[in-house]
Amino acid sequence: MAVYTRLGAEEMARIVDAFDVGTLVSAKGIAEGVSNSNWLVETQCFETTRRFILTMYEKRVEIGDLPFFLDLLDHLAARDCPVPRTIHDRDGSSYRFYEGKALALIEFLPGVSVSEPTPEQAGAVGAALAQIHLAARDFTQTRANGLGRDAWVQLLGDCGEDGLTEIDPGLCALVERELAAVARDWPGHLPHSVIHADLFPDNVLMLGAQVTGLIDFYFACTDITAYDVAVTHAAWCFCSEGRTFRPELSRALLEGYDTVRPLSAEERAALPLLARGAALRFLSTRAYDWINTPPDALVTPKDPMAFARRLEFYADPANAGVFALV
Amino acid sequence: MAVYTRLGAEEMARIVDAFDVGTLVSAKGIAEGVSNSNWLVETQCFETTRRFILTMYEKRVEIGDLPFFLDLLDHLAARDCPVPRTIHDRDGSSYRFYEGKALALIEFLPGVSVSEPTPEQAGAVGAALAQIHLAARDFTQTRANGLGRDAWVQLLGDCGEDGLTEIDPGLCALVERELAAVARDWPGHLPHSVIHADLFPDNVLMLGAQVTGLIDFYFACTDITAYDVAVTHAAWCFCSEGRTFRPELSRALLEGYDTVRPLSAEERAALPLLARGAALRFLSTRAYDWINTPPDALVTPKDPMAFARRLEFYADPANAGVFALV
Repeated sequence: MAVYTRLGAEEMARIVDAFDVGTLVSAKGIAEGVSNSNWLVETQCFETTRRFILTMYEKRVEIGDLPFFLDLLDHLAARDCPVPRTIHDRDGSSYRFYEGKALALIEFLPGVSVSEPTPEQAGAVGAALAQIHLAARDFTQTRANGLGRDAWVQLLGDCGEDGLTEIDPGLCALVERELAAVARDWPGHLPHSVIHADLFPDNVLMLGAQVTGLIDFYFACTDITAYDVAVTHAAWCFCSEGRTFRPELSRALLEGYDTVRPLSAEERAALPLLARGAALRFLSTRAYDWINTPPDALVTPKDPMAFARRLEFYADPANAGVFALV
Repeated sequence: MAVYTRLGAEEMARIVDAFDVGTLVSAKGIAEGVSNSNWLVETQCFETTRRFILTMYEKRVEIGDLPFFLDLLDHLAARDCPVPRTIHDRDGSSYRFYEGKALALIEFLPGVSVSEPTPEQAGAVGAALAQIHLAARDFTQTRANGLGRDAWVQLLGDCGEDGLTEIDPGLCALVERELAAVARDWPGHLPHSVIHADLFPDNVLMLGAQVTGLIDFYFACTDITAYDVAVTHAAWCFCSEGRTFRPELSRALLEGYDTVRPLSAEERAALPLLARGAALRFLSTRAYDWINTPPDALVTPKDPMAFARRLEFYADPANAGVFALV
């Protein structure tokens, strides 16, 4: 939620011109992206107005990963997935450099991010997720998951027993037990593919019950396909604090997914454990940020307990039926 | 540069619906406005896409002043000034409340804010400023200037001798001398009108040499008309650090203004002193913010010396000719 780099109109016009998309008529810095600067850019070409998101990569994204992220968008868009296309510059490159920073111009898509999804919307998101899983099968690039199990162990270890206990007295025991469970039973043999790995409602644009855009692929990587279903389940099927499970959203999400790419029996059986992994993944980054954000920072860290609660939900054998075929 | 309030898509859709401008199709928080939250909102009504800026007033703007600001926009827009219209809600009101905060929906205008203006652009801005001065003559509401001379004295006094000296060893003496000069010679008898009072390049949208929008009227007030020319002069005719005066921009700005509303001989003669006042006005708020911004704040305060340098420029009798008719 920031724009880190100030770009004058003249600089912006030069940048946009390199992409050959018409004349710049508007550019507004937008409050999206935690580690990038983003502008909503409008151009005019004869009578046509076009809109784009210009992203300047400030740090977290490694330049070496940009071809993976951007080529993936092009690959998925070419297969009719609801993702924004990248605009290539006059030299055919999907990104370029400006004063040492990489930047990309990406198609603007209409739609808004829902915060109180309906089952119909959850179903559409499930179907769209399955669609990208299928469409990415012949995408030849791979990228390791930088926030996989090793990272959870590392991040939660860095929090320390004291840090976790300060967040919640029972958190340390929960984390130890759950890290051990996923280490023991992780179904690494299940089918892998490109996964989005962060498909929260914020990263889905919708118009009514239609998915108009899956966005922010900067955590996309190669990992267990069904793990992405588990991540999306954890992201969509609870109230944000994680206190209330929404069975109707869960059912709709899984059914929507199955209509496009039916989960195998083995994948479905692994979902409870994969969901514990998904909860650990967000618990680990949130706990780390919670402990390491200075108290006077303008950014409020997100509550790690929201995912500790999901973790407890998924770890409770009484809830395993959530993932069973109805 | 922030969005302080998070609005879910459903809330946003309800808010937009109250203005009867079609169905919400996009809303992006934009990184503009220091004390407001702003969204670039897009709606669809039959085949027509419309864009707006939704502003939520978080604090600085007093609700009591909103009718002045918003009615002024409508008044000026009705007289063909390049300012955005306000959209009235279904009840005819130019603003409404949402969870205790006031919000307004304002027409989106194309254009970008230049950072390296050409003389042609400065001339167009001068003309647009004169246009709003003339068009506001029959605007019946008034608003006192909250950042007039009393405020400069107060803010600079709050900085204290130590604070000013810490910024620059010579600053305290400069401020004392100049506050005394404006107190002695302030031409309060000159014609008054509504003034914008903050017409920096950031607050002007342009396409080439055409002014497409004067925006951010939240400092607008009733004060000496020619003081607004002085403010705009200080804002446009120097490099941003205030080290380099740009005579060609100065000439173009004043000539552009004169083509629409010729300055009287008395106004023109007062410009050097009014410009010292304008420099003091921005020096006072910047010095205050400089001293009172915590060192670890994410917001970098603007350098007060940029306006101390302008102040010295304007106070130097050798530069009085800058404002003379050529």
